[in-house]
Amino acid sequence: MGYEEKEVKANVVYKGKILTLRVDDILTPDGKNAKREYVEHRGGAGILAIDKEGYVYLVKQYRYAYREELLEIPAGKLEEGEPAITTAMRELEEETGLKGKIEEFGLLYPTPGYTNEPLYIFIATDLEASEQHLDEGEFLDVVRLPFIEAYDMVISGKIKDGKTCFAILKYYALSLENKKQ
Amino acid sequence: MGYEEKEVKANVVYKGKILTLRVDDILTPDGKNAKREYVEHRGGAGILAIDKEGYVYLVKQYRYAYREELLEIPAGKLEEGEPAITTAMRELEEETGLKGKIEEFGLLYPTPGYTNEPLYIFIATDLEASEQHLDEGEFLDVVRLPFIEAYDMVISGKIKDGKTCFAILKYYALSLENKKQ
Repeated sequence: MGYEEKEVKANVVYKGKILTLRVDDILTPDGKNAKREYVEHRGGAGILAIDKEGYVYLVKQYRYAYREELLEIPAGKLEEGEPAITTAMRELEEETGLKGKIEEFGLLYPTPGYTNEPLYIFIATDLEASEQHLDEGEFLDVVRLPFIEAYDMVISGKIKDGKTCFAILKYYALSLENKKQ
Repeated sequence: MGYEEKEVKANVVYKGKILTLRVDDILTPDGKNAKREYVEHRGGAGILAIDKEGYVYLVKQYRYAYREELLEIPAGKLEEGEPAITTAMRELEEETGLKGKIEEFGLLYPTPGYTNEPLYIFIATDLEASEQHLDEGEFLDVVRLPFIEAYDMVISGKIKDGKTCFAILKYYALSLENKKQ
């Protein structure tokens, strides 16, 4: 225990629109100088939206980093100073045109080796139709499918996005626990 | 469908030890110029190691990006040209001093908005003691705990690392399915 690494000097090497890159000078637990490269990210919010018929709403969008279209739960980046639940409600409505009852469903650290992003996961139920209004330059399709199909896609590897796998697997596990009681 | 974003010009703005940052010029599906910022990352491998008594092996290590000690499955970055399964075996032995039978258990895209890292997940069983040999500057403690305790820590939010949540929740779901049969 006690393996803390001490910040000696914070160095911002790039400040962009969605992320900042830092390469800090640090001191290792045994007192050596080293560098730590990581993305500084304000945080994101993702929402598992499930309707009364047990269908889940995913968005299919092109992800340039992977050069691939991915199926993901609706999600977005926190605006400055915005509580994660507000982001979740905003993104759900913007991307799918749905409103609902929103509750906390977990906190994920997507890849702690090189990002500090907190990824807040919510669940939305009691869904009602509202109006979809995508951001400029945002292109996606909403896909509504039975929850168990989404679960099968996680297990078979067709759904690969981390937050989506987490939300679907956690919901599946908790539903099974509830059935046992 | 067909929301592909076309690469116009690749721009490397930082080339570091563990990551490269790119800010590419792209063309959106409606033909507009835009930028895409993302981390270029060779890939990682994580291993869910479970012994005959049903205990799982996690590593507790300080993650500078979060300024926090996290519990994670053993994992590491792919060396250049290295198959992911080789990384998995190497990291399991280096970090925990264990060898075992390694099988594929999934592929995760940790946070597709700004990284292209493929994160390969494996499962290790038939574990045997070998020798731990940490990299220089690597400090961690191995924690062996009953699988169900690790699962409870995922559900309660004490375990937050994405790949660890995925591996534990998927294993839990599959075990329950096997029991049903």
